[in-house]
Amino acid sequence: MTTAPRYLILADGAFGPFTSKTANGCLRFTPEQVVGVLDAAQAGRTVQDVLGYGGAIPVVASVAAGLPLQPNILLIGIAPSGGQLPAEWRPILRAALEAGLHIWSGLHVFIGDDPEFAALAATHGVEILDVRKPPATLPVSSGSVRQLGTETTVVLTVGSDCNIGKMTTQLAVRSALRDMGYAVAFVGTGQTGIFIDGKGTSVDAVVADFVGGAAEQMVLEAASGADIVLVEGQGSLLHPGYSGVTLGLLHGSLPHALVLCTQPSRTTIRNNEWVPIPSLSELIALHDAVTKPLRHAPTIAVAMNTFDLSDDAARDAIERGMAETRLPVTDPVRFDPMTIAQAIAAFHVSRADGDRARGGR
Amino acid sequence: MTTAPRYLILADGAFGPFTSKTANGCLRFTPEQVVGVLDAAQAGRTVQDVLGYGGAIPVVASVAAGLPLQPNILLIGIAPSGGQLPAEWRPILRAALEAGLHIWSGLHVFIGDDPEFAALAATHGVEILDVRKPPATLPVSSGSVRQLGTETTVVLTVGSDCNIGKMTTQLAVRSALRDMGYAVAFVGTGQTGIFIDGKGTSVDAVVADFVGGAAEQMVLEAASGADIVLVEGQGSLLHPGYSGVTLGLLHGSLPHALVLCTQPSRTTIRNNEWVPIPSLSELIALHDAVTKPLRHAPTIAVAMNTFDLSDDAARDAIERGMAETRLPVTDPVRFDPMTIAQAIAAFHVSRADGDRARGGR
Repeated sequence: MTTAPRYLILADGAFGPFTSKTANGCLRFTPEQVVGVLDAAQAGRTVQDVLGYGGAIPVVASVAAGLPLQPNILLIGIAPSGGQLPAEWRPILRAALEAGLHIWSGLHVFIGDDPEFAALAATHGVEILDVRKPPATLPVSSGSVRQLGTETTVVLTVGSDCNIGKMTTQLAVRSALRDMGYAVAFVGTGQTGIFIDGKGTSVDAVVADFVGGAAEQMVLEAASGADIVLVEGQGSLLHPGYSGVTLGLLHGSLPHALVLCTQPSRTTIRNNEWVPIPSLSELIALHDAVTKPLRHAPTIAVAMNTFDLSDDAARDAIERGMAETRLPVTDPVRFDPMTIAQAIAAFHVSRADGDRARGGR
Repeated sequence: MTTAPRYLILADGAFGPFTSKTANGCLRFTPEQVVGVLDAAQAGRTVQDVLGYGGAIPVVASVAAGLPLQPNILLIGIAPSGGQLPAEWRPILRAALEAGLHIWSGLHVFIGDDPEFAALAATHGVEILDVRKPPATLPVSSGSVRQLGTETTVVLTVGSDCNIGKMTTQLAVRSALRDMGYAVAFVGTGQTGIFIDGKGTSVDAVVADFVGGAAEQMVLEAASGADIVLVEGQGSLLHPGYSGVTLGLLHGSLPHALVLCTQPSRTTIRNNEWVPIPSLSELIALHDAVTKPLRHAPTIAVAMNTFDLSDDAARDAIERGMAETRLPVTDPVRFDPMTIAQAIAAFHVSRADGDRARGGR
């Protein structure tokens, strides 16, 4: 790939606010890299029609219908539980490879290991990039992030559930902190964050013993020259399937502070309705409990995903959140990420001040 | 392998109470399968001399010196952090394969994928078994263990650290519960437990998203026909490197009760001295905090590893533990696993009684 990416995003039968997480992340943060979305059921609409953002980027019915938009990459735009390729998408991948498109995928199953797709890619001179393929060797984490001094502050987003805004919050806050003049690094830890930032390791795709090690390595690399390192969180400590990834990432990245991401209208874990989501105070106490034994990471702000509430209901939820937690609370997408960015900046400055007061550097 | 296993256990330069975990588990629980231990530095001694148990099983200096003992398998007897093969062991593996021994390994690195070893195995008609190679497909856990009724009780060992007795406690308790007449299943979740029990999945070796799913699947399989399922715990919620595996296993196996394993003399996490080990009450509170959001698993007993204390100091530690926690506390190896077995049995009976009292089955 020497030219700029021009994604045709595959989300056939699945394009929507909650069903095409990877597509939506790319459309929100790097729309300039997207020429179209493939979903036969919604062909003819625009991304704006479907998501409420993304502008005039068209939705098309097939690879053939997308080719006039001059894509160079077919990007797999979903992140299904288990990470398998839907069987009905095989003909679409074949068509893309035969049309000379590269394929980029963040699925657990590796497209490039499929004999048919690998052969087609070779025949047509294109590449299959499986971003979830982990590095060959990774360390076991051992708290190395402690070596960072007060000149660098590491902030991790944690959440009440999956798919609630942990990546989106960090990307929105990154822009705001940059506007304030900070040198900010983003650590992508999932496929979408990696597609957007162009680097990173999918921590949920590494062998379980190395989740923390992968996070530790990325944070230390990102910290070089950065005032603030924003780490994309994964899953939730409450999630029956993914909590292990969440805790591994938390103890490996060893953040100085947390931003808690929630959705006021969600009362149970998605696809696991038997798990109720506790109150904000209880969630904060849970994160305090698991960070304290290693290094306490206070929760310094709450990011609420209020996309499904009216303006009034959103403001109500935020006010109730502030009353309950006494923390800065906002919806960084609907309103302004500056509230959270300022909380992070204030925390960063107070760490350095505390250090100076103790006679350190 | 059609004949019974006769292990020559490789622990060269590493055989000792704390440095050869896999060897020691096999020697404690299935000594009848072990013909010798290979450690040149201690050749001439017996296993009893080195470990304080294991009887007259000899320590030998080389594969050649072990052959008169008629081994059929060279078993890798260590579980180093990171799971790599020590480079100086390559000639030993070569010698074993050339002598017609199979190789069984629980390392993260797969011996069978090494071109040289694979070729030697083919030439000499022997097999290389990498038990840490995970199943091809695994589910994401979703709380399926909740479907088990009160006729089956799932108990997980958790710990203040790695290498502290989580497997040993379950295997000791298994015998005691069987003596009491219970149908007991053991779920091996690490290489040693798998070598001893002959089945299981190393949950720390699966892709991180599937730790819980691997545990869930094993528990449901083991529950068939069992009154009590004893799940081998892994790591610790406090461990900077492995806490993610611990939480994934906890939320996937969704135990009804926990047995907390500790070592009174250990005050910090091994190899991570910057992490102090909290009090028993704090450890129990931490486990309460992370199990309550899904299904509360009370800690019902404490297993203390007192191997490095005098009899008096061990009894003191146990009495202090009982005073602090008001729970049954013992060293199941040094004294008697019956204390813990009885706590589990009482918990199991009370679940069924509670259910009958509510009119359920």
